[in-house]
Amino acid sequence: MISLEEIKEMSLVSASKIVMLVIDGLGGLPDAAGQTELEIARTPYLDELAEKSVCGLVDPVSPGITPGSGPGHLALFGYDPLKFTIGRGVLEALGIGFELTKNDVAARGNFCTTDNNGLIMDRRAGRITTEKCTELSKLLSQIKLPGIEVFVWPVKEHRFMLALRGDALSPEINDTDPQRLGVAPNVAMAERPKAKDTARIVNIFIDAATKILSNHHPANMILLRGFSKLPEIPKMGEIYKLTPAAIAVYPMYKGLAKLLGMKIFSVEGDVREEFRILASCFEKHDFFYVHVKRADSAGEDGDFSRKVKVIEEVDSALPQLLSLKPDVIVITGDHSTPAMLKMHSWHPVPVMLYSHWCRPDHVMQFSESACLSGGLGRLHSADIMPLAMANALKLTKFGA
Amino acid sequence: MISLEEIKEMSLVSASKIVMLVIDGLGGLPDAAGQTELEIARTPYLDELAEKSVCGLVDPVSPGITPGSGPGHLALFGYDPLKFTIGRGVLEALGIGFELTKNDVAARGNFCTTDNNGLIMDRRAGRITTEKCTELSKLLSQIKLPGIEVFVWPVKEHRFMLALRGDALSPEINDTDPQRLGVAPNVAMAERPKAKDTARIVNIFIDAATKILSNHHPANMILLRGFSKLPEIPKMGEIYKLTPAAIAVYPMYKGLAKLLGMKIFSVEGDVREEFRILASCFEKHDFFYVHVKRADSAGEDGDFSRKVKVIEEVDSALPQLLSLKPDVIVITGDHSTPAMLKMHSWHPVPVMLYSHWCRPDHVMQFSESACLSGGLGRLHSADIMPLAMANALKLTKFGA
Repeated sequence: MISLEEIKEMSLVSASKIVMLVIDGLGGLPDAAGQTELEIARTPYLDELAEKSVCGLVDPVSPGITPGSGPGHLALFGYDPLKFTIGRGVLEALGIGFELTKNDVAARGNFCTTDNNGLIMDRRAGRITTEKCTELSKLLSQIKLPGIEVFVWPVKEHRFMLALRGDALSPEINDTDPQRLGVAPNVAMAERPKAKDTARIVNIFIDAATKILSNHHPANMILLRGFSKLPEIPKMGEIYKLTPAAIAVYPMYKGLAKLLGMKIFSVEGDVREEFRILASCFEKHDFFYVHVKRADSAGEDGDFSRKVKVIEEVDSALPQLLSLKPDVIVITGDHSTPAMLKMHSWHPVPVMLYSHWCRPDHVMQFSESACLSGGLGRLHSADIMPLAMANALKLTKFGA
Repeated sequence: MISLEEIKEMSLVSASKIVMLVIDGLGGLPDAAGQTELEIARTPYLDELAEKSVCGLVDPVSPGITPGSGPGHLALFGYDPLKFTIGRGVLEALGIGFELTKNDVAARGNFCTTDNNGLIMDRRAGRITTEKCTELSKLLSQIKLPGIEVFVWPVKEHRFMLALRGDALSPEINDTDPQRLGVAPNVAMAERPKAKDTARIVNIFIDAATKILSNHHPANMILLRGFSKLPEIPKMGEIYKLTPAAIAVYPMYKGLAKLLGMKIFSVEGDVREEFRILASCFEKHDFFYVHVKRADSAGEDGDFSRKVKVIEEVDSALPQLLSLKPDVIVITGDHSTPAMLKMHSWHPVPVMLYSHWCRPDHVMQFSESACLSGGLGRLHSADIMPLAMANALKLTKFGA
């Protein structure tokens, strides 16, 4: 695969505009009747665009590998997900606008419920309200640790972010969340010798939190996972010479986009609202990442028909996007989330790339099976970004 | 490509079972009538399974590269054949149950016939009987070398294994087998300075063997090739957390499987017998490698119709395999051996993967041309194992 350094050498600034529409968890599996969510959905606009586009299937990481949201998105933005990794704690911090420094170790936290014996009964504390989460996070923020600054920020419902700021902290400690019920939370332990001190500090924090929360049933305990530090990732502006914008609802995706140097446009609303915001900032940027989360949520819930509906909503809103006449339109997903499986999966994801300069194929429908015979063939997701740049005539040639 | 270390992080133990049926040399080339061995063969069961499977074509090493049996198989088990290499001598030793140590250098030996001038007349000594080979191997075992233990074990017909055990032996010496007639065997020479002493020892052994064999025409000389040491390869149990079993007839494949930590089930018989043994050990393991050698042998002999017949035998025995209801079935080859070419070739190999969770494609027949439009597209053989693991729900996701 070509390196980001090589892409950087070839990229150039131009007036052309690229829109990348990411329908989270887009790829699916056939139901009993033999068709996937995308195949059953009535998608006249997507199909019409597919006819003018070049289509294919992408593997976000590598065949057989089920990606998390982080690797799935990094790949879409052209970053080799095997080379660049972002911890969940860091993603959570970025998503709520917490300014991480290089001295910070961040973790994703859950308020949870434990019984009298300290065994986990509910990993999400009955999904307490965000208000309650905010109140409890404030209480935990007051925990004092020697030589360490403590930040506890609420995220949503039972979720919060913990950041510890101090010299020589290491993120190489295990999750305290065992991800199952009926057992006690794990003790934080160092995965490398240099993380011993951090593990000790985390355990002091957990003990203090346990005391504070003892009167706050069902949120009477915390679980931490994804301890991580800010990774060093080159910005999209630097690599591609783009001024990228991100339009997304959910914190994690905004956080990831911010890490890559995108300007964040927060949205409260559906895809029509996202496209309205796209229109409003269309003049000022040349790359737009538009994220549609609800297809993935429906897939994870095993709700086949809701996923179909989300895809149909995207389709019906598509004219808003098309009316802006972007030079390049990429429509794909960060991974598959088949409703039949109720989880992220390894199945390759349909992709279409429209531009005046694409070489169209015979694909007449945007679907898993139709994309199989598309002109892009089967690619790594990280190949999409160079293709989008090329179709926007933003890449010079490689070598003399 | 994803690394074995990363796969190891993601793999988990579950009750699901994977069967990998390797039809050696499966891929072919069309005869004058325009169809390959696999296309002409009447294969109703394979075709029916292909209809429910996801199909594709795999390159064992890389496009255009013709693999030996070692690399072809390593790739199927998920080991990058460009990174992991196994010498032929080591494979031979493993195949006959010889317990190699880290101090051993092993070579594959042939008894051969030379004329009065020492020129090779028959590289296989008229394929002497295994009994004769055993007798002569015993004689050669008695050769004494200073500071070196000598092991000469018969393999089959004219073939034997030589292992030299001693400190500081190096395998980096050339083959003494020139692989053609009318010339003298090569002298063993070091390919690296550190192998000089080993080359000298090997030449002493050859001189002694020549004297011993002078009265044993047609087996009056030896040829050695594939000098090698035991490579360090992580076991399949360690990487995939599987308890793998190998069902095979020929020594080399059993040797390779043993090196990867598989439990070996030796078979004397045809594919029906192999499937009977599969059934008998099906409860105790969760991964099964079943090797069908005779398709490759027929291909190497240029016997198109015999290769067709072997494939049809596999097909007619398939219900035995299907009745076990494995969660994942992979059917492919380690490489192509077109009867038209009479040798291993670089042509990609058809593959089908059946599971409840595969995304079926429109392939209705198991053949080279049908697999071209399969949902797997064109992959590296080393991608098959992660796909099999994923379909068996034995891999967690990569990243958050």
